[in-house]
Amino acid sequence: MKIGVDYYPEQWDRALWKEDADNMKKAGVKIVRMAEFAWGRLEPAEGEFDFSWLDEAVALFAERGIEVFLGTPTNCPPQWMFEKYPEIIQADQGGNRISIGIRGHRCLNSPVFREKCRLIITEMVSRYRDNPWVVGYQIDNELEANYCCCPVCAERFREFVRGKYGTVEKVNRAYGNVVWSGEYSDFSQINPPFGSFRTWLNPSYMLDFNRYASESTVDYVEFQRKLIRSLDEDALITTNGWLCENMPDFYDLFAGLDFVSYDNYPATVLPEEEETLYSHAFHLDFMRGIKRKNFWIMEQLSGGLGSWTPMQPTPRPGMIKGYAMQAAAHGADAILHFRWRTAAAGAEMFWHGLIDHSNVPGRRLEEFCDLCREAEQLKELQGSVIRNQVAVLYSSEQEYAFKIQPQAEGMHYFTQLKAWHDAFTAQGIGVDIIDWHSPLQGYKIVVAPTLLVTDEKIVKNLHAFAREGGHLVLTNRCGVKGENNQCIMAPLPTVFADMTGAEVREYDPIGTARKKIRLTGDGWGQEDADKEAFCTLWCDILEPHGAEVLVEYVEDFYEGEAAATVNPYGSGLAYYVGTVLNRRTMHLLARSIAERADVAYYENIPVGVERTVREKDGRQWVFYFNNTEKRQSVKNEETRRLAAGKAAASDGALTLEPFEMKILQAEAEGRKVI
Amino acid sequence: MKIGVDYYPEQWDRALWKEDADNMKKAGVKIVRMAEFAWGRLEPAEGEFDFSWLDEAVALFAERGIEVFLGTPTNCPPQWMFEKYPEIIQADQGGNRISIGIRGHRCLNSPVFREKCRLIITEMVSRYRDNPWVVGYQIDNELEANYCCCPVCAERFREFVRGKYGTVEKVNRAYGNVVWSGEYSDFSQINPPFGSFRTWLNPSYMLDFNRYASESTVDYVEFQRKLIRSLDEDALITTNGWLCENMPDFYDLFAGLDFVSYDNYPATVLPEEEETLYSHAFHLDFMRGIKRKNFWIMEQLSGGLGSWTPMQPTPRPGMIKGYAMQAAAHGADAILHFRWRTAAAGAEMFWHGLIDHSNVPGRRLEEFCDLCREAEQLKELQGSVIRNQVAVLYSSEQEYAFKIQPQAEGMHYFTQLKAWHDAFTAQGIGVDIIDWHSPLQGYKIVVAPTLLVTDEKIVKNLHAFAREGGHLVLTNRCGVKGENNQCIMAPLPTVFADMTGAEVREYDPIGTARKKIRLTGDGWGQEDADKEAFCTLWCDILEPHGAEVLVEYVEDFYEGEAAATVNPYGSGLAYYVGTVLNRRTMHLLARSIAERADVAYYENIPVGVERTVREKDGRQWVFYFNNTEKRQSVKNEETRRLAAGKAAASDGALTLEPFEMKILQAEAEGRKVI
Amino acid sequence: MKIGVDYYPEQWDRALWKEDADNMKKAGVKIVRMAEFAWGRLEPAEGEFDFSWLDEAVALFAERGIEVFLGTPTNCPPQWMFEKYPEIIQADQGGNRISIGIRGHRCLNSPVFREKCRLIITEMVSRYRDNPWVVGYQIDNELEANYCCCPVCAERFREFVRGKYGTVEKVNRAYGNVVWSGEYSDFSQINPPFGSFRTWLNPSYMLDFNRYASESTVDYVEFQRKLIRSLDEDALITTNGWLCENMPDFYDLFAGLDFVSYDNYPATVLPEEEETLYSHAFHLDFMRGIKRKNFWIMEQLSGGLGSWTPMQPTPRPGMIKGYAMQAAAHGADAILHFRWRTAAAGAEMFWHGLIDHSNVPGRRLEEFCDLCREAEQLKELQGSVIRNQVAVLYSSEQEYAFKIQPQAEGMHYFTQLKAWHDAFTAQGIGVDIIDWHSPLQGYKIVVAPTLLVTDEKIVKNLHAFAREGGHLVLTNRCGVKGENNQCIMAPLPTVFADMTGAEVREYDPIGTARKKIRLTGDGWGQEDADKEAFCTLWCDILEPHGAEVLVEYVEDFYEGEAAATVNPYGSGLAYYVGTVLNRRTMHLLARSIAERADVAYYENIPVGVERTVREKDGRQWVFYFNNTEKRQSVKNEETRRLAAGKAAASDGALTLEPFEMKILQAEAEGRKVI
Repeated sequence: MKIGVDYYPEQWDRALWKEDADNMKKAGVKIVRMAEFAWGRLEPAEGEFDFSWLDEAVALFAERGIEVFLGTPTNCPPQWMFEKYPEIIQADQGGNRISIGIRGHRCLNSPVFREKCRLIITEMVSRYRDNPWVVGYQIDNELEANYCCCPVCAERFREFVRGKYGTVEKVNRAYGNVVWSGEYSDFSQINPPFGSFRTWLNPSYMLDFNRYASESTVDYVEFQRKLIRSLDEDALITTNGWLCENMPDFYDLFAGLDFVSYDNYPATVLPEEEETLYSHAFHLDFMRGIKRKNFWIMEQLSGGLGSWTPMQPTPRPGMIKGYAMQAAAHGADAILHFRWRTAAAGAEMFWHGLIDHSNVPGRRLEEFCDLCREAEQLKELQGSVIRNQVAVLYSSEQEYAFKIQPQAEGMHYFTQLKAWHDAFTAQGIGVDIIDWHSPLQGYKIVVAPTLLVTDEKIVKNLHAFAREGGHLVLTNRCGVKGENNQCIMAPLPTVFADMTGAEVREYDPIGTARKKIRLTGDGWGQEDADKEAFCTLWCDILEPHGAEVLVEYVEDFYEGEAAATVNPYGSGLAYYVGTVLNRRTMHLLARSIAERADVAYYENIPVGVERTVREKDGRQWVFYFNNTEKRQSVKNEETRRLAAGKAAASDGALTLEPFEMKILQAEAEGRKVI
Repeated sequence: MKIGVDYYPEQWDRALWKEDADNMKKAGVKIVRMAEFAWGRLEPAEGEFDFSWLDEAVALFAERGIEVFLGTPTNCPPQWMFEKYPEIIQADQGGNRISIGIRGHRCLNSPVFREKCRLIITEMVSRYRDNPWVVGYQIDNELEANYCCCPVCAERFREFVRGKYGTVEKVNRAYGNVVWSGEYSDFSQINPPFGSFRTWLNPSYMLDFNRYASESTVDYVEFQRKLIRSLDEDALITTNGWLCENMPDFYDLFAGLDFVSYDNYPATVLPEEEETLYSHAFHLDFMRGIKRKNFWIMEQLSGGLGSWTPMQPTPRPGMIKGYAMQAAAHGADAILHFRWRTAAAGAEMFWHGLIDHSNVPGRRLEEFCDLCREAEQLKELQGSVIRNQVAVLYSSEQEYAFKIQPQAEGMHYFTQLKAWHDAFTAQGIGVDIIDWHSPLQGYKIVVAPTLLVTDEKIVKNLHAFAREGGHLVLTNRCGVKGENNQCIMAPLPTVFADMTGAEVREYDPIGTARKKIRLTGDGWGQEDADKEAFCTLWCDILEPHGAEVLVEYVEDFYEGEAAATVNPYGSGLAYYVGTVLNRRTMHLLARSIAERADVAYYENIPVGVERTVREKDGRQWVFYFNNTEKRQSVKNEETRRLAAGKAAASDGALTLEPFEMKILQAEAEGRKVI
Repeated sequence: MKIGVDYYPEQWDRALWKEDADNMKKAGVKIVRMAEFAWGRLEPAEGEFDFSWLDEAVALFAERGIEVFLGTPTNCPPQWMFEKYPEIIQADQGGNRISIGIRGHRCLNSPVFREKCRLIITEMVSRYRDNPWVVGYQIDNELEANYCCCPVCAERFREFVRGKYGTVEKVNRAYGNVVWSGEYSDFSQINPPFGSFRTWLNPSYMLDFNRYASESTVDYVEFQRKLIRSLDEDALITTNGWLCENMPDFYDLFAGLDFVSYDNYPATVLPEEEETLYSHAFHLDFMRGIKRKNFWIMEQLSGGLGSWTPMQPTPRPGMIKGYAMQAAAHGADAILHFRWRTAAAGAEMFWHGLIDHSNVPGRRLEEFCDLCREAEQLKELQGSVIRNQVAVLYSSEQEYAFKIQPQAEGMHYFTQLKAWHDAFTAQGIGVDIIDWHSPLQGYKIVVAPTLLVTDEKIVKNLHAFAREGGHLVLTNRCGVKGENNQCIMAPLPTVFADMTGAEVREYDPIGTARKKIRLTGDGWGQEDADKEAFCTLWCDILEPHGAEVLVEYVEDFYEGEAAATVNPYGSGLAYYVGTVLNRRTMHLLARSIAERADVAYYENIPVGVERTVREKDGRQWVFYFNNTEKRQSVKNEETRRLAAGKAAASDGALTLEPFEMKILQAEAEGRKVI
């Protein structure tokens, strides 16, 4: 577990460089990311490269045993390039070149821009490929799906559609263009989604545009990756993902890259409403799931955020270290903090780093140093992995489809996944968030929330999983559509209905309203939960034909009707949860599901405390993290066994301060301890 | 009373057509609307027409005795047309062509577009004019006032202004252009309202632009109407109106058409706040009032709405049938449900029809079938009409003027009319909503709410009405302006002040605040209503000189001042209501007004229950509709007399389930039963 | 003290002119402003001037002894000018010419426009320079900083930057352009801030753009001022300032003008939340502070506002007179009401004047007449001035910098200043709001709130002030940045830290949250205030090294830490208030500060009652104004001494009706009466 920082030598007087490098060494920093915004300084005039300053910075860190990760500086072309080649500027939804002056304004498909990228990257990688301290490259920065509407991109989109379908007739069928006389008679009529009324556009077309936009970004990443690899056979290559509005498909994005890296900014203010899910554990499990292996944090919360928005509250004590440890507990092998120093200039000057403008070491730097020390003691974690029995399926297709057509007021795809992640987490059960098309062998439970859009592969995979003994959880909005984002004309959950033993007779998109429900199945454990149980957002009215009813509605015209069911399929089970349950009911349901699937769960884990396990060579590290602002106490068989007299009190209770992480060590065979 | 559906054969496999037609016949469907979005399929390439599929569909319905209403498909030109003739695309407020890809993008004034319309309509009408099953044509779809800002339209607007005023001097005077040096020296300086700050523009100019925009759409309708009529002497011709933000004047729009038709989507979730008026009875009476005769519903609520917005809750049990019966009770002679099948493709796929994507007949289709059966039993209603003694005046001039210059925070023109409609409805009194310039003979009570803009004709008409014995209700904001939307320099209600016996000394636009009031006049009936009485939005402080005071303020600096008055004028009465009363006080006031006017009202009608009467040849059908989510009971002289032992319990109480309609039959002479 | 009105003869029939002039004379009007929007009538065609109507109007007032103030009509060029010279139209953030049709659309830098201005102004001033009744000129109307993005303005901005820095290297350093590769290699790359994402732009560049935009407007004012002065040596010259979003720097704006004038529209609805500061006393003191002398009100509230927004509630009784008297009490020597008559046409027809559309004299005109009478009796006030011992520093640099980078959710620069003004006002202590670069001699207390941006001059001045015995109040966000809007790398308050005896160890931008605090210093007087004391928006955690702690936090992780301190510096004191206190605590703090500084304060002044003093030749007028909607009573040594038996009751209590002003007279030496 490697702790590092992001550093911008170009922003500071050379006088500070040595001081900073010395202090980093002293703190225990192992790796530094640099240069991802420095194109202007690396090529101050066309074709005139100046790497001398970067050489110097690299050397400074190398001398102190600190590795360097370089960013290809292509996010921000120099000003002379925009002026000389205005065609490299992105176009907006009106087809007009956007205003430059911020960052990320380049069109990823522009041939001129790509050539300029080729030159600067070649220069960079050739220079450092033999430097053992430069260990890898981050491609560009926080890439989004390519929504550029310039003529080059419009043509690329047309090529995408033509390549996928071949003829306009096939396009028209795939999109259902007959509606509102939208049928193309020529590919020339196809354009990116100009205009501001995107929610009125054909959803099949829009889903394809989203797919294209993602592929377009992936193509750009591949262009850089191949170039770097052609120059340096050994360098690590990645890019830093972030969960933005226009996310590309992360599975595609990282497919060719060596590992996933992620920019991790958990909340500094926790929400008061208990239904609100805030933990970044979900994001971290999502990142680990992309390549189903450990990952890096390329930017980690270091101070209060702000800049283009008003400043937010500063991280509470414990957050700097705790959130980093949380990342490690979920599989981060390196964690670079953004940033060592808070910028004194530029638009980002209030996006705080570890060191404030004061240049006086403070509370947050202290916590960071503490983190470095702890990381040093956890060296053995290197090579350890996380193995879970529960998976939740993510799919960018759903993400796009939900954004194109919001299903009910307040209903978001991501939140649905988070709720399932949270429900198993609350039982101390580790969860993998994985691509919907992943192989599912090895999992006991697979949750497939709101698979609005389906395709042959997922249908086949999920059937196989349940048939062979897996416990599959389907939910409302599963099976609504085929791969073209057109509705499937069959009773919901359509392609999955043969598994569920229940069909949706009717649905009621209640949005932010709440309806009372009752738990009816066995094994719930806590009957008084009924009193407060409610559902929200969406109500499928289920007609069971064979399935066991788990939840039923107790108000409105579907009073007494089934809301959730479970049904044997093959040697497995198929759950169908037709509504969105309140948090506590979700926890009870997850426990019940775990119990039936013989997945170990853990008692007395307070809400907000997160338990994960990394393992290696027969050894286990059990992490207990208090992701709340209150002191919490855990006391179960595991804490008694592993921690009594050590991390825990004599009675086996493990006490955790706010954002504190405690790590228990065990033999791997002792895995199932309830 | 004819029940029908909207159907889109072009969207479905031919295999489904027969099944659908059979099922419609079985359900009792009498009429089907088709083709209003099918231009792309009817003219797949320029000048190449293909009506074969429509022929087939028409034949299928004809064979089953189902009539066909065709839409002229001009709302959505084919893609090839937009590509070849980009000048047919509307221009936005910046004068730029908008982005196509949704619907309704054509410029109504474009000569090229009109020629293309001429060709397709000629093709269509010539083809079906001799087919007895094709009974009529809907012109285009849900037309809005023409806000297009293309050069052609800009010139049309200039012509409108020149035609109306002749010289720029007259324009300048009419608009008061001297303010802010806005005087034109040449017609070339006149443009449509470019830019996004319309509320800052000259309101006289803006009102004229709204008039032009309405006339422009009417001109387009007339162009299509004349063309159709020239080809087919007998076809029914209409267009389907909807209450959109940019409504054209409906009286002008339908002036040349055979009857009004309307797209009727009542709320599926009723508001909890009791001051919120939700009943579509107002809209229905508005539609009947346009031509002062019965009308059609061309699109009727069939399922949960959604698509470009998140899905809304599904219609509660009773709504499908009940809302259709409500339309019939207010004068709908045909009701076509939108739509038979929910679309599986395109932007509107979650705007639910009667049959869900599941293709399994469900609760809503069942209710629809029930409706068809009941309609069959109500055949005698054909030819029956509605005659009311109370009219509320609507004027698109006010609608436009209020939108151009909002009078107080939260004050809307439509809501003011709805409140008066609701107040009389609550007494079981039928109300006509009619054009402000209509003849008023035959009415006992005429309410003229917020006549912000006036002209000579309305002043003359209203004086004559009261002089000859009518009871006239004027309100706050009446008489503020002349026809040019400039303020009249006289004490309010200016041109009406000679009738009211009271003048507005001062006004206070209190917006969403509330002020206590007290009822002071005789005949209110319920003194305890005082306790909760309040007013909102606007407070005229009245100075009576002869008028009787009905309501007075009991707080703020106008405590004790008059808020509403009544005054004899000629052989009639003139009320002036200077504020906006809370709902219950409005109900009491309406009853008091009815009493003085000798208009029959009905006791014990719960709020939300609506009573209407259709009559024919000395017979009456009395409709009682429960437009609430609770069971309601009505018990008055009428229910005792007409329903005891039949629809009602033995004590004469008529019990209505949520959204239930009960119809009582009577002789016409028994009309006045209190 | 001169009372006047704004009048638009061009908007009215000549028949009304005489009636209006007669009525004004009768009311006691002394001065009329005219013509600022009348270019269209003064130059109806290019080069054809028609001043005959204005001559007539001027003569009408002159005959009645009423002075005339003329506006240069350059805010609204005639329509023919926009048509013939479209290059005079402003460009928006996209660089496109805006839509005309409202007002203020001209580009201040356009050479053609300036030439047209030269001609009309020359015509006007030459015509009236010898007319003794035309006493002065208002330049244009309500000028904003020049944000025009046309090519001419873009070039002007480039010239501004080039002129300031000389080389792009210096620009790059000043802006910190190295961040995100923003370094210019040529001045041609510099543009105004195109696009809609301004909060993402470089804040150093943005601050300079704001400076340029202000200077650009000032340049335009100077162009007009010089022209007028060259034609008329004696005329009064001013412009009417208003507090708009894009304010120019008022100190620069009025530097060359004879006096400040201001458009004064206090609230007609007072807020219910007691933390909300609404008094316009702040604005008035701000205006007086600009040139540190008395000022004019060029537009004063006369009726309910409205037009492009819905109408607002009408002024409550007392407001017309009371708010005018409040202005006088703060140094207004002339108060012109906007407007005599409410417009009957044009976009502003519901921005009410003294006379309603009814043309019937009403309550507001009556109050106005009463005001005129009282003004007549206060003639002796002429030449009296206001001298205060407390100053609050304002700086447009901060205003701009806060808008560019909001510091915390809900934190606004202006509100911070208002809070300090309010705190001293609550003690009956007069406050000057003055330019941050003003000389500070003569003040006992200087408050410098949130000096985010600093420069050498302010650092030197504030040190000198405290060193020489002044009591200086600094707050959170003081000293964050240098003059280029880059952060200073030193412990806050950086350049002031040597004075405060305390440093900011860390800060927490809590936004709208609230945290409990405790008063710890001496002299607070009311210990029970502790119970409700809270802070909000921003929390500096202070580390005192020598300073006395005045306030400490009592919750969150900085419980027990210092929030406000005071420290001796030179022979003075330096306060540092690291958070934003609730209103009552601010009042207590202000009293404590006054006490230490030996500034007289007054007991028993209810919140909302404002005390000010004007003085002349050894005489004082003490104004007590009730700026609340309730009757209030003041009883302290001063009221006992000056008012007993006269304005006050026998026990010395001064009772004030809502918005009532009472004036006590005294000898100047009796100044310090507590």
